[in-house]
Amino acid sequence: MEKELSKLLDYRSSIKVVDATLRDGGLVNDFYFTDEFVKDLYKANVKAGVDYMEFGYKANKDMFDVDKFGKWKFCNDDDIREIVGDNDTDLKIAIMADVGRCDYKNDIVNKADSPIDLIRVATYINTMPAAIDMIEDAYKKGYQSTCNIMAISNAQESDIDVALDLLGKSPVDVFYIVDSYGSIYPEQMARIADKYLNFATKYGKKVGIHAHNNQQLAFANTIEAVGCGVDYLDATYGEMGRGAGNCAMELLIGFLKNPKYNLYPVIKFIEQYVKPLKEKDVKWGYDLQYLVTGLLNEHPRTAISFTNDDRKDYAEFYKEIISHE
Amino acid sequence: MEKELSKLLDYRSSIKVVDATLRDGGLVNDFYFTDEFVKDLYKANVKAGVDYMEFGYKANKDMFDVDKFGKWKFCNDDDIREIVGDNDTDLKIAIMADVGRCDYKNDIVNKADSPIDLIRVATYINTMPAAIDMIEDAYKKGYQSTCNIMAISNAQESDIDVALDLLGKSPVDVFYIVDSYGSIYPEQMARIADKYLNFATKYGKKVGIHAHNNQQLAFANTIEAVGCGVDYLDATYGEMGRGAGNCAMELLIGFLKNPKYNLYPVIKFIEQYVKPLKEKDVKWGYDLQYLVTGLLNEHPRTAISFTNDDRKDYAEFYKEIISHE
Repeated sequence: MEKELSKLLDYRSSIKVVDATLRDGGLVNDFYFTDEFVKDLYKANVKAGVDYMEFGYKANKDMFDVDKFGKWKFCNDDDIREIVGDNDTDLKIAIMADVGRCDYKNDIVNKADSPIDLIRVATYINTMPAAIDMIEDAYKKGYQSTCNIMAISNAQESDIDVALDLLGKSPVDVFYIVDSYGSIYPEQMARIADKYLNFATKYGKKVGIHAHNNQQLAFANTIEAVGCGVDYLDATYGEMGRGAGNCAMELLIGFLKNPKYNLYPVIKFIEQYVKPLKEKDVKWGYDLQYLVTGLLNEHPRTAISFTNDDRKDYAEFYKEIISHE
Repeated sequence: MEKELSKLLDYRSSIKVVDATLRDGGLVNDFYFTDEFVKDLYKANVKAGVDYMEFGYKANKDMFDVDKFGKWKFCNDDDIREIVGDNDTDLKIAIMADVGRCDYKNDIVNKADSPIDLIRVATYINTMPAAIDMIEDAYKKGYQSTCNIMAISNAQESDIDVALDLLGKSPVDVFYIVDSYGSIYPEQMARIADKYLNFATKYGKKVGIHAHNNQQLAFANTIEAVGCGVDYLDATYGEMGRGAGNCAMELLIGFLKNPKYNLYPVIKFIEQYVKPLKEKDVKWGYDLQYLVTGLLNEHPRTAISFTNDDRKDYAEFYKEIISHE
């Protein structure tokens, strides 16, 4: 009862909303956003009271061809500056750095020389030492950092314990719960959040959540986590993101009671930019194929192919997926 | 922890899935379903292990013109028989009877002469005595019954207590929680379910849930209620239903662990019948306008008009709604 009263009528000022539209959304359009889109998204975030805006990845240019992706796969500091200027706002700037796909020693310069505030390190559980090296590098250069352990629904609980203990001893600021496959139910999310929060409390860290909408639970899992004490909340405008998409920014901002958050600029941006994008054949969002991979706790790649191939034979897809198991 | 283990890995055999596709879905196409649709839905329900199929309303023909609606607004026993024959299956047949809009004394005959098993009485909280009269009538005629108290998010908690106490003393079998506006969050749903279950336990009744998807929480609220002990679960194929639609049958059947439930016929039916219906301009499902009315705990009628008028000016709609408050 207390949980609800504090959560639903009052607010916790430690909550931070992280807009991941360009980064997770970039995965469905190869990061080809117009400058106008990015500038107006930045303005919408400032008006909406969003706390962090993730611009994209710092991908290694030796590995990825800059001509085959929009610039937000690489997030040059100069490109960010062109959007945010000196960023004289309360909105902080984040980028994602993937283990094994980021030349962080060279491509991430000192914070004093960069518009970026937060480095989000994405890793699978079997590459924690590499992630921690990136976190230490970010820390030495003056950045805040998060560690986003992906695909935890396929990891052993005992391995997660080890990973969180390692992370606790690192200079990372936030442990992120990532439901990569959209397979986690709210009751499980509560249990996972409790685990993460136990380690976070022990080591003086915060906890975040990044959800996928395969089973229409991205928002539900996010607010379940809020109720448990999770503070960093990823969302995307119109839930734009890989496969079934993410927690919808419009649902999250509507839910949060801190008066600094405003729903109107979110709705306005979706109307002006996100809906037209979806009509122009950029594809994401809940559908049966994503439900199937989420339910079976699988990577959504088969469902994404199904979508991109414009297939409509959902029942056949279901048979394919359950027979390859 | 125990709650999760019993809920997520094992199953409760008292759970009943109620397919409300024809009834709530009928609200978006004026009940004009083809006989083929209805026959194949019946077969899909039997194969999927669904427990009840709601065919539609028993609407009063003095009040509603039979030429202006499909036959499932009226659910003549003969029309049902044409679909189900003697219904020699485990699937039970339900219809909905609205307080004030059903000539139940005449139009509902004795159970012995009808294919119907369950009468679902829909009421607002201020017409409980009329609802109870209908329940008593159904009981005397030999039917099971439920009482679906609508729009409880706008009712006083103390009034709900009185209503549940009245109902407890009636011959009704199931108290239904109805989130008509899609405004309830899972934490609130848990509290409401506890209240309903307290009265239900006292009087030897069961509890059901009927959710709407304005905030993408219809499925989340339904499984939250399952965790609390709610047994009767409404869902619709492809979440077809008024406004933002209902809890998706495919999500619910995917979630439930009782081996009698099968997902494949659900996906097959959606592919064959529900997706084509949606492409043919029958409109329902989550969108910003429904989020707005859900968030503000309002009847979705303004959002439905917005949808039917093909409006896309979501930001303007938001301003209209917050200024008429």
